[in-house]
Amino acid sequence: MKNTKVILANRPKGEIEDTNFDIKTEELKEIKEGEILIEIHDISLDPAIRGWMNEGTTYIKGIEIGAVVRTFSAGKIIQSKNPKFKEGDYVSGLLGAQNYCISNGEGLSHINISGSKLSHHLGILGMPGMTAYFGLLKSGEPVSGDVVYISGAAGIVGSTVGQIAKIKGCTVIGSAGSDAKCKFLLEECGFDYAINYKTEDIDQQLKKYAPNGVHIYYDNVGGPTLDIALLNLARGARVVICGAISQYNDMANIYGPKNYMKIVTARGKMNGIIVFDYVEQWPSAVKEIAEWINDGQIKVKEHTVLGLENFSKTLQMLYTGENFGKLILNIHS
Amino acid sequence: MKNTKVILANRPKGEIEDTNFDIKTEELKEIKEGEILIEIHDISLDPAIRGWMNEGTTYIKGIEIGAVVRTFSAGKIIQSKNPKFKEGDYVSGLLGAQNYCISNGEGLSHINISGSKLSHHLGILGMPGMTAYFGLLKSGEPVSGDVVYISGAAGIVGSTVGQIAKIKGCTVIGSAGSDAKCKFLLEECGFDYAINYKTEDIDQQLKKYAPNGVHIYYDNVGGPTLDIALLNLARGARVVICGAISQYNDMANIYGPKNYMKIVTARGKMNGIIVFDYVEQWPSAVKEIAEWINDGQIKVKEHTVLGLENFSKTLQMLYTGENFGKLILNIHS
Repeated sequence: MKNTKVILANRPKGEIEDTNFDIKTEELKEIKEGEILIEIHDISLDPAIRGWMNEGTTYIKGIEIGAVVRTFSAGKIIQSKNPKFKEGDYVSGLLGAQNYCISNGEGLSHINISGSKLSHHLGILGMPGMTAYFGLLKSGEPVSGDVVYISGAAGIVGSTVGQIAKIKGCTVIGSAGSDAKCKFLLEECGFDYAINYKTEDIDQQLKKYAPNGVHIYYDNVGGPTLDIALLNLARGARVVICGAISQYNDMANIYGPKNYMKIVTARGKMNGIIVFDYVEQWPSAVKEIAEWINDGQIKVKEHTVLGLENFSKTLQMLYTGENFGKLILNIHS
Repeated sequence: MKNTKVILANRPKGEIEDTNFDIKTEELKEIKEGEILIEIHDISLDPAIRGWMNEGTTYIKGIEIGAVVRTFSAGKIIQSKNPKFKEGDYVSGLLGAQNYCISNGEGLSHINISGSKLSHHLGILGMPGMTAYFGLLKSGEPVSGDVVYISGAAGIVGSTVGQIAKIKGCTVIGSAGSDAKCKFLLEECGFDYAINYKTEDIDQQLKKYAPNGVHIYYDNVGGPTLDIALLNLARGARVVICGAISQYNDMANIYGPKNYMKIVTARGKMNGIIVFDYVEQWPSAVKEIAEWINDGQIKVKEHTVLGLENFSKTLQMLYTGENFGKLILNIHS
């Protein structure tokens, strides 16, 4: 049996290039006592991968040169020498961008597939969905009637934040990079307002849609958009820093928010979300979100690309905004 | 009776210059029913004045061209046609940079002078002291054992924050701009560590003095110092934004903290302090601080300059760091 994998050939200087990766095929080893063999079906393309490609980051080590590219992936156990894992079960975890993964089971999550789509467990029922859920509810502390503004709103995190905020009785404004994405936010996700940041002035539109200010700003993009949001805070506002996708390609020259003092005058606070802090509460969150999906209260959009050979190209779509919906590389149907 | 006053002649572009002010002497009007006449003794030079000299700011209007320069001042009531104010009483408030002020009493605070120095009511027992007290206790939420780092530590706010933090059982680190100021922090204020930011590397020294990180960063200066503090946060840290004196001369090109994402990885929060929010609790805070001064638990340093004609020169000392202690312009002994 052979395994094909995407490995990190070298570290990108700025934007990711195809030459940063190699594809390698090698003989699969036999699994040892305590190990399992997972056939990977779906690979999640997440903004965090760009950070992992750097030498080392704040709270997680970088991918080593020559190692398989670290990704959240989901698949089926096809061999098990570990009593905690059964053949035929589905799992997800940092399985990497490859066809098969041998694991001792550490850090893996069992997937209760019943009726759900496997790839959803990498998106709305996986880390991004958990990031949305706990970031909004724990760090944003929404109260019915709050105005919530979300940047990068058409992504899986942003669209989930907005839909949960609607369930919690908030007015929801999202910004995204195309009219099609804005239409998706308004018509499918039930957002109250959408701003196409490529053709509209965010500051002007926020002042129109939130004349009394924004109570929660959920930041997925960083950069000048964060600065504009800071100008539009309501008294007591919470700024939830989730990501800074506009900044990941040049971490040495991060754009710092010049308007950070507005947090003071708004009597607000800026905090963030580290989703792993809530790992014990993930199962109940997964259950709640799955119910919302089943009653149609939450819509999910996936953007699926086929084939491991398209890994690099697909990953790059994340940073150019070409993807529309949770980006999934499907490598086994 | 004549009144001499400092008026705003024009708005500074960057740093304050002497030509931004004029000194004018005019006949004092008679006070009307409901008014009082205050003889001003002490004028407080505060960083906020630079902001007020701009056209308009976030939460308070700018000083109008031709108007008396807005300052906190303290003085004695020498005439009263207002039943709430007695001749011979002391008051403080936004009385301006002038010898006399006619007021209807709105916004004035009665000063209970008993045994205290009048000018202290503009410093440690006035707005700066209240800023220190409520900023540390309400926004910083100190717990015994916390490590507190304070920039601009030799100023009235910083030195008071540090001394209150010591009373609360914290380890206290302060940075200031001269060896004399550092000596003052260590020997008079009881700080555990002091960093001369002009001759020492703040990041290096913080890593030495706070190897497990800083639980509370009380920021009086902004700029690159804030960025360094963000690199040294302990888990759950509170960043209290009080001021940004390094940035006030060029508000159009504020230095935004590039390391703001460290708040996320530290599971911390950034908030601020608006001292007016606690105005009802000022009297009890004044009482508590006055007791600490009386038992010698808190030391106060004042830098007094004599004469209204020195207003501009004295104010500029604030931004160059030439002052050492709470800067007071005494115009009546």
